Amino acid sequence: MTLNHQEDKPDLKFHRKALQVGEAQSRVMEYAQLLAAEEVPLNQSCGRYLADELITPHPFPAFNRSGMDGYALIAEDTKDCGSDNIVWLKVVDEIPCGAVPSVDITPGTAARIMTGAQVPEGADTVVMFEVTESLEKDGVTYVGIRKPQAAGRNVTPIGQELRTGDLVLPAGKLIGAGDIAALAAMGVHTVKVHRRPKIGIFATGSELLEVDEPLQPGKIRNSNSPMLEALVREAGGDPVMLGAIADDLELARSRVHMALDSCDMVITTGGVSVGDYDIMGDLVREKSGDMLFNKVTMRPGSVTTAAVRGGKLLLALSGNPGACFVGFQLFARPVIARMQGAAHPFLPEWTAVLGTDYSKVNNYTRYVRARLEIRDGVVHAYPAAIDESSVMVTIKDSDCLIIVPPEERGMSAGAKVTVLKLPGEIYEA
Amino acid sequence: MTLNHQEDKPDLKFHRKALQVGEAQSRVMEYAQLLAAEEVPLNQSCGRYLADELITPHPFPAFNRSGMDGYALIAEDTKDCGSDNIVWLKVVDEIPCGAVPSVDITPGTAARIMTGAQVPEGADTVVMFEVTESLEKDGVTYVGIRKPQAAGRNVTPIGQELRTGDLVLPAGKLIGAGDIAALAAMGVHTVKVHRRPKIGIFATGSELLEVDEPLQPGKIRNSNSPMLEALVREAGGDPVMLGAIADDLELARSRVHMALDSCDMVITTGGVSVGDYDIMGDLVREKSGDMLFNKVTMRPGSVTTAAVRGGKLLLALSGNPGACFVGFQLFARPVIARMQGAAHPFLPEWTAVLGTDYSKVNNYTRYVRARLEIRDGVVHAYPAAIDESSVMVTIKDSDCLIIVPPEERGMSAGAKVTVLKLPGEIYEA
Repeated sequence: MTLNHQEDKPDLKFHRKALQVGEAQSRVMEYAQLLAAEEVPLNQSCGRYLADELITPHPFPAFNRSGMDGYALIAEDTKDCGSDNIVWLKVVDEIPCGAVPSVDITPGTAARIMTGAQVPEGADTVVMFEVTESLEKDGVTYVGIRKPQAAGRNVTPIGQELRTGDLVLPAGKLIGAGDIAALAAMGVHTVKVHRRPKIGIFATGSELLEVDEPLQPGKIRNSNSPMLEALVREAGGDPVMLGAIADDLELARSRVHMALDSCDMVITTGGVSVGDYDIMGDLVREKSGDMLFNKVTMRPGSVTTAAVRGGKLLLALSGNPGACFVGFQLFARPVIARMQGAAHPFLPEWTAVLGTDYSKVNNYTRYVRARLEIRDGVVHAYPAAIDESSVMVTIKDSDCLIIVPPEERGMSAGAKVTVLKLPGEIYEA
Repeated sequence: MTLNHQEDKPDLKFHRKALQVGEAQSRVMEYAQLLAAEEVPLNQSCGRYLADELITPHPFPAFNRSGMDGYALIAEDTKDCGSDNIVWLKVVDEIPCGAVPSVDITPGTAARIMTGAQVPEGADTVVMFEVTESLEKDGVTYVGIRKPQAAGRNVTPIGQELRTGDLVLPAGKLIGAGDIAALAAMGVHTVKVHRRPKIGIFATGSELLEVDEPLQPGKIRNSNSPMLEALVREAGGDPVMLGAIADDLELARSRVHMALDSCDMVITTGGVSVGDYDIMGDLVREKSGDMLFNKVTMRPGSVTTAAVRGGKLLLALSGNPGACFVGFQLFARPVIARMQGAAHPFLPEWTAVLGTDYSKVNNYTRYVRARLEIRDGVVHAYPAAIDESSVMVTIKDSDCLIIVPPEERGMSAGAKVTVLKLPGEIYEA
């Protein structure tokens, strides 16, 4: 007969040293190596991170630009204008967009000019067409002005938006439509970006069915792998799907090693519990790599495990969907973003007002899935009704994770909380 | 000799009937026809809009699920437990994840069970492994419990997250990573979405250079076409790039007609001013299609023009980058989103606190590019320093458009304003 106090079982599984989230993040970020830069066509650069800052090569606009269809002239010429004293200027040029003025403007003359065209030398203002009159005499056109004009009106001066040498875009910026416009205007038709990291993804668990399989008793469909694939893409990574494997240490070991050889990082889901089938934990403990941590003081996802082999990260997330999601956002997303040179690899941190009471507390920091609402200029966060680690259905309805510190004894509606904003827009429910 | 009061020139160009933005939006939205549905693999459905609602086909979880590695047993059996009264239950089964219990639990028995495994019939609670003891006698294993257990502990009941017939996802939802998880869990491996609209894009203007051309006097690079391409993609559309054409009515006409034949909508930029080269305006006026509007009471972009030909929309945006951007967000984006069945085709509307004084007003509603900051739970909006219609450089730094109503006589810092949230995350500057 043997009697075991299972708590005292000399198994490392039960003697994990828990790290704080920030410390665990620092450890994985050390291995977020910046990937090689590559050139992509401007129209494929959206959603990538700029590798080099963009410095203005020339003033923008590059010439004094007319903001109106009208007449370019010298403001001084109109100083005596009045409703009963129309001033007539000789029209000496016509300047469509894209053309170069053929003559300079001298006192007593004006040029017909289009919106966006180059204001001729000498002229210092543009009078809009609609408030002018015209007259033809001996084959010469004159423009009549009835009101004094101020110098500088309707003229965008050279360099108004950008001067040579100005910083247009910093390195590490996520390229959006407005950045595309700036890059195009500066003549950047191929953009240097860091390549997308290849992220191997596999799931472990004998209970897993493929998405297209019919349900079987005791089994569940593998929803974590497709979710991780979407999350990796959202973070700018290039997911490499390695399927689901049963709880088989040998198979897991060879799969992890192969994946680490060909990918920049490997994410697994499942197999990190303290149970008998803790294959990812076993894999790390048996020195397939250096363990960075195998416990984090957080809920959900306290069993999140990270190891390094050959300089590459293996991130073993919980198989519980909620914990898998939170673990990805806290640890995988910043690494994937940083590998691409992102200036802001972490989720944005906002302060919000708690929308309802939240009573669940424990000795670890909680990351509570929640819905944001912006009302009258104030950000409100509403915790999901069921928020267990195993729960999948609340992920889709969450805009943020509320950070509930361990020392809290429950929080009341109206309290200020820190939230991590999840990617995506906030619409009313 | 001829004398013209140009204001009285009998030209429709100067007699545009201005519509309010809301009315103009309603007019274009009437032509946002819902496109055909298509089936895409689950992993390509992210960023698309769900065509049909998803109703739960089976309870989720589909069985009573253990939330712990431990022992499944009958809570009642432990009611007399105490530190000096250990209760021993006969272990009659071992249930790994994905397996089916082989026997029901009856009083006096328990089953070893893993996290995520199916709780056997008869058992109503799971005791975590770490607080149990074990004993072997005559080849039979017994588990020892020292504390009374509550029924329901560590058991996720069947249907806790979703019951058969529950609405999981509404039609029109933009599919994100959390939705992918839900679809996967429900066994949806191909997803019905409305196809992406093909959006023809071309620019007009003799002043336009390609992005890879060196600057020439009086000319500018075409930054609007690449920006519109990125904006169309961001809205879920499929951009069809038709290049830039000089100010040539014939060419523009044939290009527009061809584009309308092969695309679902055509967006042009440039050629809608009141100048002599107002080719898009001319094209609409000469009855190439039915005009919906050619003036909107907004700044920038008052000359925004929309027409319909053969049931398809032609949206002619200003050539000024700022006006082009705002016009896209107000008119093109909602149409593109609605064609895909989006539940929320318009930009989200938030209330924010104005961060600095804003003094520029006029008789039209202004859409002022601005930067958002969330401080202590409050949304602040900071107008861009230069915000003219022609200005390109502020687009990239804007998170939102502040709506400044025409009746305002300037607004002071601290005032509540309505903003349209632009796509993208808000990071600190």
